Amino acid sequence: MECRKIRIGIAGLGKIGCAAVNEFDKQKENFKMEAGLEIILKKTADKDMEREIYSLPFTKNVEEIIDDGEIDIFVELIGGYSPAYEHIKNALLKGKHVITANKAVIDRYGSELEIIALEHERYLRFSASVGGGMGVIDKITSSEGNNTKEILGILNGTTNYILTRMNKGMDYNTALLEAQEKGFAEANPEFDVSGKDAAQKLAIITSINFKTKISSEEIYCEGIKKISSEDIAFAKQLGYTIKLLAISRLKDNLLEASVQPVLLPKRHALSSINYETNAIYLKGNANIMLSGEGAGKPTAAAIMTDIRQISRMMQNPYQKISFFGTNKFEIVEKENLESRFYLKFYGLDKPGTLHNLTGILASHNINISQAIQIGEERENFVPVVITTDKTKYGEIIKAISNISREKLRFGSVFMISNCDYPDKE
Amino acid sequence: MECRKIRIGIAGLGKIGCAAVNEFDKQKENFKMEAGLEIILKKTADKDMEREIYSLPFTKNVEEIIDDGEIDIFVELIGGYSPAYEHIKNALLKGKHVITANKAVIDRYGSELEIIALEHERYLRFSASVGGGMGVIDKITSSEGNNTKEILGILNGTTNYILTRMNKGMDYNTALLEAQEKGFAEANPEFDVSGKDAAQKLAIITSINFKTKISSEEIYCEGIKKISSEDIAFAKQLGYTIKLLAISRLKDNLLEASVQPVLLPKRHALSSINYETNAIYLKGNANIMLSGEGAGKPTAAAIMTDIRQISRMMQNPYQKISFFGTNKFEIVEKENLESRFYLKFYGLDKPGTLHNLTGILASHNINISQAIQIGEERENFVPVVITTDKTKYGEIIKAISNISREKLRFGSVFMISNCDYPDKE
Repeated sequence: MECRKIRIGIAGLGKIGCAAVNEFDKQKENFKMEAGLEIILKKTADKDMEREIYSLPFTKNVEEIIDDGEIDIFVELIGGYSPAYEHIKNALLKGKHVITANKAVIDRYGSELEIIALEHERYLRFSASVGGGMGVIDKITSSEGNNTKEILGILNGTTNYILTRMNKGMDYNTALLEAQEKGFAEANPEFDVSGKDAAQKLAIITSINFKTKISSEEIYCEGIKKISSEDIAFAKQLGYTIKLLAISRLKDNLLEASVQPVLLPKRHALSSINYETNAIYLKGNANIMLSGEGAGKPTAAAIMTDIRQISRMMQNPYQKISFFGTNKFEIVEKENLESRFYLKFYGLDKPGTLHNLTGILASHNINISQAIQIGEERENFVPVVITTDKTKYGEIIKAISNISREKLRFGSVFMISNCDYPDKE
Repeated sequence: MECRKIRIGIAGLGKIGCAAVNEFDKQKENFKMEAGLEIILKKTADKDMEREIYSLPFTKNVEEIIDDGEIDIFVELIGGYSPAYEHIKNALLKGKHVITANKAVIDRYGSELEIIALEHERYLRFSASVGGGMGVIDKITSSEGNNTKEILGILNGTTNYILTRMNKGMDYNTALLEAQEKGFAEANPEFDVSGKDAAQKLAIITSINFKTKISSEEIYCEGIKKISSEDIAFAKQLGYTIKLLAISRLKDNLLEASVQPVLLPKRHALSSINYETNAIYLKGNANIMLSGEGAGKPTAAAIMTDIRQISRMMQNPYQKISFFGTNKFEIVEKENLESRFYLKFYGLDKPGTLHNLTGILASHNINISQAIQIGEERENFVPVVITTDKTKYGEIIKAISNISREKLRFGSVFMISNCDYPDKE
């Protein structure tokens, strides 16, 4: 049987690029048999000559792929904003379908690029940009009937790995080192531990889910560096696990979006997502959780899924499908985020300390749910941990700034998540 | 703006039918705004006049929907094989798109109905038939790049609810009664507790995942009735949770498919899926788990997802999309299923009993991994629990039949699942 041929070009032969080439090799025969389509890797490009893969046509010049009229699909795996963005745009303008794993570009330019793709009747796919291995984007687009009003995500493997190890008693630096040794953390982990990686991913899935356009710069973002081993131990004692959560929530046209450490009740499904595993938890008509490995081979598989899907769709008339939307929402300021809170102070080990603290909180209308003095005295100060009822972050910040520095020192503050799934002991 | 109109007819106004009508009411305005399509519920049908929903056009005669040339989509929510199957077939033949929640019909006739749909360029969707709320079928079809070679599923909420309660110390009958009171079990629970419901669902998703056609009759199926509270306690002591697992696995053109109670290591992601929650766990390039509520409102949401998707697709030229396939595999016989096993016997509390047992197992080449004598003596007999290394089910059955009835009585046998995800303590 004569197979229809589809030609692709891959730009960027780093870790993901190589994994994608391997996965492509592994799957192409199978796909040919299943779909009657032969996918040919016609050209690879990387500015670094040393990354040339033996036996594959190679160029230093990405434009050679973009200008090649025979190539149907341009796969961008370079990463970073520029020149990746320009390459994607040019490829679309020249009539190519585009697949990218680039969360930075999709976060900042996704909506704009989608419009160009639609105008030129080309497909733009980016499954690998967020939790590629488990198909997060596909899950969100295909759940429209679920009417998802809230997304909770563990979207970054590095920080989840570190927090899992810390939860077992390891300190931050040792956990980070171990993550680096196992390939779950970069040599420079700043982008991950700051929460920015999760924020870019959250921006993309929030935009898709709520048919709007929010960028990571509009998302309140805190990393994991302010979480101490002491906080983790206190949280554990109270029945919580600290996770770096990416949260977005729509209520009455107000959109909340944040990345921050959150205390999760131990019975919450997300609290048992450990190590480098990622997960999203969608609250709508149904509460759905999707979990899976986040990086490496699964990312390559997500790129292959995109290649296979576009190849199939090319056999049919063009379908206008858009991921982003034009809904406009007011974005909730950090001060107006509402939650229960975990607060840690260090108080002088003398009568009246806790009384002083509770008075200040009361004057800010903050209801205390639990107040416990735990741990050992250090230089006359003992840790005091308080959990509050639901209140606004702004009130908490004001209360903290009113604490007398003589008797009390502020330690840390984290949100506490409710648990409504499974909502049983 | 003038909206394009799409007309639907719903047959079957039982529990799911009513939920679907409610969900439809809730979502239609939103969908109109988002997609510019107005979906009109033109007719409802039920053979039971008392189920008529006030304010909706009603007929006792399903043919009135099927023969109505204005209705684009026929939604079958009657259930059972006949006349549901005939109605679906006729609707497709008369040029209607069809949505059904009917796992029995899709299990038995899905492939045949799909061929009719493709021939008539109509869409046939059945998202609600398996784990509708969480979108299991969509997850499987969209994961083709993942190259899933094994599916493990908790596909039945009733049995999972009962097992969860039994795992907390409740006996079977009380747990069943509680499940019935909460609406998670039918008055006649046989179809659920026998594993047949899970087997129909497994047949559907196995057919889709491996692009083949297997029916539930070809699936080895055991229910939960043979699990005693004692077994659950012993399993717990050994670090396992007993779950009713639906398993399918492809290896070298051999397809394994079974529904049976399985001992899952506590660290396995599926072991923490509790109560009425369902889950599927896919092993391929990535290990992915999807979990969520199984019945009721989520099922209605799945039907709405199908309605929305078909409505959108109707705006474009017809796309040939098939769920089933023509792959042929040899189906592994029960005797050839390979696994580790949990075996329970009752032995005379005298010297030589365990020796006698281990001798018989050794003569069948069954390696023992653990052997423990636990629990209390009852009429001179004490329970002995053995876990084995990997072996064939057939060998286990032969060994059991060779046990001397005088000193040893057979208690129960269950498979033990490996845990490779998360594969850490």
